[in-house]
Amino acid sequence: MLNKANAIIPKMRLSELGEFGLINLIRNSSARYENSGRTPWQEVLVGIGDDAAAWQSDNHIQLATTDTLVQDVHFDLDTISWEELGWKALAVNLSDIAAMGGIPKYALLSLALPGEVEVEDISKFINSMMHLAREFEIAIVGGNVAASPNVVITLTIIGSSKGQNLLKRSTASFGEQIAVTGYLGSSAAGLEMLKGKAISNPEISNFLRRAHFKPMPKVKEGQILIEQGVKTAIDISDGLVADLDHICESSKVNAKIRIDKVPVHPVVSANFPNHQELALCGGEDYELLFTADEATIGRVKQALNCPVTVIGAITKEKLPTRVTVVDSKGNIIPYNKGGWEHFKNGSSRVKFA
Amino acid sequence: MLNKANAIIPKMRLSELGEFGLINLIRNSSARYENSGRTPWQEVLVGIGDDAAAWQSDNHIQLATTDTLVQDVHFDLDTISWEELGWKALAVNLSDIAAMGGIPKYALLSLALPGEVEVEDISKFINSMMHLAREFEIAIVGGNVAASPNVVITLTIIGSSKGQNLLKRSTASFGEQIAVTGYLGSSAAGLEMLKGKAISNPEISNFLRRAHFKPMPKVKEGQILIEQGVKTAIDISDGLVADLDHICESSKVNAKIRIDKVPVHPVVSANFPNHQELALCGGEDYELLFTADEATIGRVKQALNCPVTVIGAITKEKLPTRVTVVDSKGNIIPYNKGGWEHFKNGSSRVKFA
Repeated sequence: MLNKANAIIPKMRLSELGEFGLINLIRNSSARYENSGRTPWQEVLVGIGDDAAAWQSDNHIQLATTDTLVQDVHFDLDTISWEELGWKALAVNLSDIAAMGGIPKYALLSLALPGEVEVEDISKFINSMMHLAREFEIAIVGGNVAASPNVVITLTIIGSSKGQNLLKRSTASFGEQIAVTGYLGSSAAGLEMLKGKAISNPEISNFLRRAHFKPMPKVKEGQILIEQGVKTAIDISDGLVADLDHICESSKVNAKIRIDKVPVHPVVSANFPNHQELALCGGEDYELLFTADEATIGRVKQALNCPVTVIGAITKEKLPTRVTVVDSKGNIIPYNKGGWEHFKNGSSRVKFA
Repeated sequence: MLNKANAIIPKMRLSELGEFGLINLIRNSSARYENSGRTPWQEVLVGIGDDAAAWQSDNHIQLATTDTLVQDVHFDLDTISWEELGWKALAVNLSDIAAMGGIPKYALLSLALPGEVEVEDISKFINSMMHLAREFEIAIVGGNVAASPNVVITLTIIGSSKGQNLLKRSTASFGEQIAVTGYLGSSAAGLEMLKGKAISNPEISNFLRRAHFKPMPKVKEGQILIEQGVKTAIDISDGLVADLDHICESSKVNAKIRIDKVPVHPVVSANFPNHQELALCGGEDYELLFTADEATIGRVKQALNCPVTVIGAITKEKLPTRVTVVDSKGNIIPYNKGGWEHFKNGSSRVKFA
């Protein structure tokens, strides 16, 4: 699909294609997926090409989230490929809908790009994004393109709830267990490799690169959490400790986690002596972190096809910090909270919805 | 309101406030408007502070639009104030909902900012945006903040239709009249002044500055167009000729307009010898351009509180271009289409929804 699409893309820069050419490129890439006759496309009344997109509403709760990726802040074009960038820009947004247990439906894509960008690269970016969009049955219904000295990508996803329930940050309560899907630290391990740590095995290298650049948002998993009665979740973007702290702050509770319980992929534990730190503070794994009573978590384990690991509990114990990390003997492990704050110390992303 | 809010903002840069401080600043500014007990706030289930915003859906058609303003492409911080920037960023997005005849309801604000920005300036930006948001009863339900070498502002507005009808670009038909609300060219005249054209009268100078930096989106007017039976409209962002060309392209029709009918504010015609060119090609007036039969336009004139001027017609005549401009004697007037294309020739904005 990518090759076929690229075959018709002439070798030129964006400044030669122009913005209406770019809009057509996006429209054509989207059109290949629109004729499936399935929702959400069948509910779209006005797609790309008018002042606003329009679709027929359903009766569910509506969800909306937005996220921006800024060149040299969130990504470096010397390491990430355009194909990976298109995937990741959509994936991180889908992850926020996943963290609400919602169904993503519509996306608006805002692209600010320098004129020197090769059209072939933009085409790879768009096709990769459309590929992921199709995987989750999302219609890219509109957006905006503009010239810019640096690449800035903003995605907005609009979705709905499956029933009348949502996964929120503010509903964790005392006595609940804390659990995560999948493995943590793989994305941060990938970043360490990209920054220079030697990994000789190409399969491991691919695994780590993919973990960092092509995360798979846990959309179905979020919906299953709701079906099984979970009320509280967040996606792990800032890092386990930082994101658990967001839950604790919103829910006005404290949490204690066991460092030896935090699931790390064998490839990461075998190759990264600092794997516990990566798992605690690395972020960008886009796994789901959630709290629920023991019985609910038991049902979740049965219902999900991915690992589900209990790593701690919401506690009334007097502890030094809102989120406290201990070892198997109960000794408190100091940590660097991670979850970089923008403006203060550079990279990473933080959102307010 | 602005002064009161500013009084509590300490003198510091964004790098000292940090991103969570910035999010709180936005949240607090929004909170002052949330307690009105009116829609859309009463429908908001999850606002700022979770993974995504959530609200209870209604049964209408949903609308969504997004727009990005890039520093030194769309605005220059040497001329626009932060207060004006906050207004304009929201206004241009509201104008797209106005051009669909919709009701704007929710906004997501994505801010990419350098750490050196003064918190006081950002506070002015946010308060000004909130002021306009309140005027149109819009809830800012979420967004994203990130560090960036330059200022990039992306707004997404989600709204709904009033009934089951929308104003589209694709429904113009032969024999219809072409009309506009308000006056054209004032914003472009303001830009000429800001670029150096001397205007000595401070009242005129304020009028022109306001026309360029603080446009008032024609939201109510768009809704009234629908009530009166209009089906086709666009907002004038790229320029009269360029935006009329968008309608003609989407509707597969041709248009002829009379240059002497195009409404220009007396202040602009008195001070700008090139006022016709500004009105045809200047753009950014955010007035509504629409087509309808004579009787419908008659009703619209009665229903609207602003000037409504018929400037031409959708025609079957053989003419040299899709949009043809003539003088009172029918002589064809050549024009430079305007409506800058991004990447090819710099500034202005173009969207694909």
